[in-house]
Amino acid sequence: MLKEMMENVRNKTPLIHNITNYVTVNDCANILLACGGSPIMADDSGEVEEITTICGGLNINIGTLNKNTIPSMILAGKKANELSHPVILDPVGAGASALRTNTANDLLKEIKFSVIKGNISEIKTLYMGSGTTKGVDADIADKVTDENIDDAVEFIKGFSAETGAIIIVTGEIDIIANEEKAYIVRNGHSMMSNITGTGCMLSAMTAAYITANDDDMLEACLASVCLMGYAGEIAYKKMKETEAGNSTFRNYLIDAIFNMTGDELEKGAKYESK
Amino acid sequence: MLKEMMENVRNKTPLIHNITNYVTVNDCANILLACGGSPIMADDSGEVEEITTICGGLNINIGTLNKNTIPSMILAGKKANELSHPVILDPVGAGASALRTNTANDLLKEIKFSVIKGNISEIKTLYMGSGTTKGVDADIADKVTDENIDDAVEFIKGFSAETGAIIIVTGEIDIIANEEKAYIVRNGHSMMSNITGTGCMLSAMTAAYITANDDDMLEACLASVCLMGYAGEIAYKKMKETEAGNSTFRNYLIDAIFNMTGDELEKGAKYESK
Amino acid sequence: MLKEMMENVRNKTPLIHNITNYVTVNDCANILLACGGSPIMADDSGEVEEITTICGGLNINIGTLNKNTIPSMILAGKKANELSHPVILDPVGAGASALRTNTANDLLKEIKFSVIKGNISEIKTLYMGSGTTKGVDADIADKVTDENIDDAVEFIKGFSAETGAIIIVTGEIDIIANEEKAYIVRNGHSMMSNITGTGCMLSAMTAAYITANDDDMLEACLASVCLMGYAGEIAYKKMKETEAGNSTFRNYLIDAIFNMTGDELEKGAKYESK
Repeated sequence: MLKEMMENVRNKTPLIHNITNYVTVNDCANILLACGGSPIMADDSGEVEEITTICGGLNINIGTLNKNTIPSMILAGKKANELSHPVILDPVGAGASALRTNTANDLLKEIKFSVIKGNISEIKTLYMGSGTTKGVDADIADKVTDENIDDAVEFIKGFSAETGAIIIVTGEIDIIANEEKAYIVRNGHSMMSNITGTGCMLSAMTAAYITANDDDMLEACLASVCLMGYAGEIAYKKMKETEAGNSTFRNYLIDAIFNMTGDELEKGAKYESK
Repeated sequence: MLKEMMENVRNKTPLIHNITNYVTVNDCANILLACGGSPIMADDSGEVEEITTICGGLNINIGTLNKNTIPSMILAGKKANELSHPVILDPVGAGASALRTNTANDLLKEIKFSVIKGNISEIKTLYMGSGTTKGVDADIADKVTDENIDDAVEFIKGFSAETGAIIIVTGEIDIIANEEKAYIVRNGHSMMSNITGTGCMLSAMTAAYITANDDDMLEACLASVCLMGYAGEIAYKKMKETEAGNSTFRNYLIDAIFNMTGDELEKGAKYESK
Repeated sequence: MLKEMMENVRNKTPLIHNITNYVTVNDCANILLACGGSPIMADDSGEVEEITTICGGLNINIGTLNKNTIPSMILAGKKANELSHPVILDPVGAGASALRTNTANDLLKEIKFSVIKGNISEIKTLYMGSGTTKGVDADIADKVTDENIDDAVEFIKGFSAETGAIIIVTGEIDIIANEEKAYIVRNGHSMMSNITGTGCMLSAMTAAYITANDDDMLEACLASVCLMGYAGEIAYKKMKETEAGNSTFRNYLIDAIFNMTGDELEKGAKYESK
């Protein structure tokens, strides 16, 4: 199944419109190319609707958001909705400033997202910010562990029910869930937190996966999350062999996405459904 | 001849003012350093004229253009014209949105460019957008091939005659032409399209080449295009040897520019005049 | 002593707010992670005060400054002062345009910096721009050498006395000084000037060092400068061994920061006090 998802990306070369931060934008472009997609970056309100129109999917990432790009996110997201293009939100730093939290909440109000991807802290901020009283919140710690995973899955399914989006929560254990079904992914390596951009790259790549697999987005997300994590494992191994460090690890990570075959992904993916 | 062009860049260390996109800006800076030039990036309208004044050449790239940077491009371009500095235009995505097409056309109206570099689609957009009726247009496909190359060369010479600029059309086969003379370059590797920024990097490097060789810009463009393509071939070979992927390929490409000697370039360059 | 500084960074994981240029921002983020710090990039005036508040230190870099980010620098700097967070200024290109020179001077007026880091030309611009008459100025050439080093140290101590900041002047020989004491560092390699961003990366890393060692900032700066320079030496050696070029050198440089042990730094650091 994962193999088929990957082949669809490589065969269809989905064109992804990215409104993303300037810190990791180059990595997002290169990982899109590595996985078989094609990137366009455009964030001026004067062109984002047209650019989204010629693309297959949209990736909105609020890292380094500003007064000029926030309206562009809204415009592009609405246009993508109008055209039924898949849209993913990466609410980078939601909770760290009112501007980020409010922007993320505004985006949730104005745009129907196919996927929302964040760490547990960002996702909690958004779910709580929605005004619903959720008794379960207090039980979800700042980290998903084997001990709290069932609560975490319920929590995430709840947020999916509220937003209609597939939710991806990344961390040592990743969770991917819609209202009814969840996947737990145990790929990845702690080294991935020693470079900037693994989260942003995952969002960009996931945009390509859901665009090329729009009839099965939950499994497309699963494939993308497993691919990213497994590539991290391969990159870490190569980093140790070559006595490299975090900067070279970044290259190896993208290289591993580029070189991954469907069979390798099927073999290396570690996931279960909940 | 190519060797001499290269040595001029390395000996003169041309300082290049870049108003360019935030996706590939770091690669543009590093390739300028790799080839022997020196980069400055500045895009606020409050300083671009001064920055251009202290530089030798100007590189305008409209990828991720926005309301703030468009006026800066105009200001810097006019100042460079006033000072007789070489100016290159990379109309990234012209045709993909009205903002990009109109901006590129405005730039062509306001600024005299030494070189315009794009893919065949971007160049067609600009030539057609100029209002001239060109019966030949319809005959130029979206790709330059051995079959349509003579038509393509005529087309490009026509655009050069209209703009007074040297035109570089990149693709599997590259064409460099002024009104009278054209070069066909067959260097490069398809792997170059698996990373972001090869086009942007070529524009930045070409700015250095025409600035250091301003009495022979057509040949300077030829040298830059051959250098980029041949570096891509070298980088691909190294990528295969080291079982790397697209991210490492990017490093190898810039490394190859850095390490290239004039004799190697003369030997590796594959071009003919038309 | 250097070892202890390094361990403090790694143990405390200082969170650094960066308002920096889009050319080298990714390298700044990755070097912060390499050295044991943690980066946040945010430059919209609507959030910079909040972001600075949750961080431990602030890094202001005026490369690619613009009308939107200049007020953000002022706001963030004032907030950091209010909270007694260490703040570093990298006046990239001061002297190259009035906008940069004036902005740097405005920042010096509005914000109390813990550290100001630049090349000799930038530092001279700022010191002279302050209006004080300094007879010594004319004696400081554009490069610090063994011949003019005593004059340079006096000059830098003078600027420190005026600003209350530790001054770092980078070049072939680096000088770090407060009003009373100076260190001369002879680490580094000329290859470092063949990539973009070594200066920006040093500022970002130094922000982490002074934040994690705020009771001994002069020595924290010394450790950071030695670490950067020594990493450059290691990276150069590896570059030659692998027949790589400047792009790969950048990766090796950040890798070397990532892999450096305290003992290696103590052994490799070449400094003296003046």
